[in-house]
Amino acid sequence: MEPSPATAAATPKGASTRAVLLDRAAEMASRLGLEGVTIGELAAAAGMSKSGVFAHFGSREDLVRQTLDWVAGQFVDAVFLPSLRQPRGLPRLQAIMAAWIEWIGAHPDGCVFLGASVEYDGRPGPMREHVASLAGRWHQALEHATAMAVGEGHLAADTEPPLVAFQLQALMDGLHHARLYRAADATALARRAVAELFSRHAVTAHA
Amino acid sequence: MEPSPATAAATPKGASTRAVLLDRAAEMASRLGLEGVTIGELAAAAGMSKSGVFAHFGSREDLVRQTLDWVAGQFVDAVFLPSLRQPRGLPRLQAIMAAWIEWIGAHPDGCVFLGASVEYDGRPGPMREHVASLAGRWHQALEHATAMAVGEGHLAADTEPPLVAFQLQALMDGLHHARLYRAADATALARRAVAELFSRHAVTAHA
Repeated sequence: MEPSPATAAATPKGASTRAVLLDRAAEMASRLGLEGVTIGELAAAAGMSKSGVFAHFGSREDLVRQTLDWVAGQFVDAVFLPSLRQPRGLPRLQAIMAAWIEWIGAHPDGCVFLGASVEYDGRPGPMREHVASLAGRWHQALEHATAMAVGEGHLAADTEPPLVAFQLQALMDGLHHARLYRAADATALARRAVAELFSRHAVTAHA
Repeated sequence: MEPSPATAAATPKGASTRAVLLDRAAEMASRLGLEGVTIGELAAAAGMSKSGVFAHFGSREDLVRQTLDWVAGQFVDAVFLPSLRQPRGLPRLQAIMAAWIEWIGAHPDGCVFLGASVEYDGRPGPMREHVASLAGRWHQALEHATAMAVGEGHLAADTEPPLVAFQLQALMDGLHHARLYRAADATALARRAVAELFSRHAVTAHA
């Protein structure tokens, strides 16, 4: 696909090479985990010299962190932003969950974001803190979206947003896992469990 | 702790060295993932020579697989077997979930078993197949325990064991994840979500 003149102007050569490298690094991280991403492997995968890759990322730590941030940005673009076109409240929350299930389906080797949570939970240090901070922000976004659905009168007033946000995240964690041991109907089970959770809390008109 | 004479007789020196090594390897895998377990690192951690470790595990692949099986055995001993002392049905299923939450609490660096699911989902090969097979067997055990709770009349007849087993596994996956971003009350949220799931399906006398 040729970039449009406007896009080309906004992405000078350096920026677009960086994007290509991050995309490749994200694909590598999806298969091998972020700890499997190295400057040398990325250079080999991209057909570049190691010094060429170093020109974009000052260190392996920097590359790993930027790869995670890149995936987090893609996740927000694919899962969160489109939901803002839906009416506030339950329709928006349902749109987030539907797009999230699509996202998981589009990443058959595993989500880098979730993988990082498992990878770094036992490795204290700045990356663990960064992963925890990103995961915490996403949890807050889910909790906020749930609270808005209560505020709009779509979910019952006694719905507890922290508990529902935990349950929604858990169902998506469970979908990632279930694809491994129950590939045939994992997505269908997850969709039903999400719908059941919403209908349990829904005010009748929106059930 | 001194082994009792009976235990000592049942664990000759070779077997107990193997157990010490697997315990050390499991601890390493909990922090670093199974891919972080190597013969060399394990030898260094155990203060043994590499050839001493090789005497117990023929290859790195063998070590990694035996480490996973060792952890799976510990999981069955800690989470599943004690539940058999409870009456069939919902009490047994509740005992499994309570022990599972304890197990997660006892492994603050992460569960090797769950970590392996994320680690190998993007790495086709015999280890991925083995991880999927172990996870599938556990899912079947959960589904069977749920079906028994229906059979005993503790859960409603329209309860679908595959869906409930998926939800229970998801809540435990979610608890692992939530400890990273919501450490203070992750366990409490998981306990409440499990109780809510059971009470939703419970026949009134057992709610």
